[in-house]
Amino acid sequence: MRDVFHEELESITADQLKMTALVKDAIDSATKALLNADLQLAEKVIADDLAVDNIQHNLDERTINLMARQQPVASDLRRLVSSLRISADLERMGDLAHHIAKLARMRYPNRAVPAEVVENITEMGNAASRIVEKMSVVLEFRDTNRALEVDKDDDEMDKLQRKLIATILGPDWQHSVESAVDMAFASRYFERFSDHAVSIAQRVYYTETGEFAPKVS
Amino acid sequence: MRDVFHEELESITADQLKMTALVKDAIDSATKALLNADLQLAEKVIADDLAVDNIQHNLDERTINLMARQQPVASDLRRLVSSLRISADLERMGDLAHHIAKLARMRYPNRAVPAEVVENITEMGNAASRIVEKMSVVLEFRDTNRALEVDKDDDEMDKLQRKLIATILGPDWQHSVESAVDMAFASRYFERFSDHAVSIAQRVYYTETGEFAPKVS
Repeated sequence: MRDVFHEELESITADQLKMTALVKDAIDSATKALLNADLQLAEKVIADDLAVDNIQHNLDERTINLMARQQPVASDLRRLVSSLRISADLERMGDLAHHIAKLARMRYPNRAVPAEVVENITEMGNAASRIVEKMSVVLEFRDTNRALEVDKDDDEMDKLQRKLIATILGPDWQHSVESAVDMAFASRYFERFSDHAVSIAQRVYYTETGEFAPKVS
Repeated sequence: MRDVFHEELESITADQLKMTALVKDAIDSATKALLNADLQLAEKVIADDLAVDNIQHNLDERTINLMARQQPVASDLRRLVSSLRISADLERMGDLAHHIAKLARMRYPNRAVPAEVVENITEMGNAASRIVEKMSVVLEFRDTNRALEVDKDDDEMDKLQRKLIATILGPDWQHSVESAVDMAFASRYFERFSDHAVSIAQRVYYTETGEFAPKVS
């Protein structure tokens, strides 16, 4: 009975890793679409978000069925509850990539990103990509050391967001209020995307160690 | 055995209603603090958010323990999973009120809200308050009709957000980029607050009827 349980748990994790790969593609493509005013790519990210949502619905069903059939207790039960939350975080990460793509689409044929913040947005996209990649390793190998690194990368993301906000509110900002608001929202979406990855890494850390991850800075 | 289960379920709902009341206070106070540049009130909202977080942690523990001890299946299990998600939504609503209060604190002694959008922000605060009040009735009485009303109120919130964005991006906007970005973020927080209330109402609807709530507009 325990074997069936762990087999199914592995298959749930495998699907979460698929979601993670989709979400990584989504944030990479959304960043590109935003930086290059690439309408086709933006539309692709928006359409593909449905696949992430569908995997989540399917995973939720399977996780709840596994609870009902196997009646796990203690750490196995906690692992399943944590798994439901991880799927929800992944689904939300897909939404946030989708939001970034919608920003690109809304301003097309113009580019939403003014020249001054191209580097900053590029760095935020790279940071998001790095964070989701590490989070994927945490999820696959239950790697608690890597979980702490995700938190550190998130600090970097927060710094990048503060830098972006300082630029758009600074005295040298020559662009429209619209551009400033677009960039403020974009930075918020990247930052929230990263927060959800941290949250996933922390859930794995907690499930593995029984302790909350210490704050690394 | 079923009786103990339902008693504990009721006590969990009772605590979620407490969280709801705290979250309603928080959004009402945060709106006031934002509109009146009331630092003391803003600090209170920020400090009180801890109480919401603590109830959530406690509820999560109790819900998972209830699962482990009573091994519910079918609708009882789904009700508990839904309950975990409702607590998470409530916790997030507390965070969003907290974010609004932080905006008030950040601009103190100035008022973050320019005169032109005072009415709009007031209406968003009122809409948020109305939505959380109705959601509370949905949660307490499992009222599926009221659940549909929450969705309708959320459409009103979305309209108010679009109106606010149109004002700050419009040709008559005389204020700083900083003010525009502040108001954009504030409107996003109100809108997300409302989304989480809708999500709670929809979870109750689904648990009660076995069907997803139809879109009312």
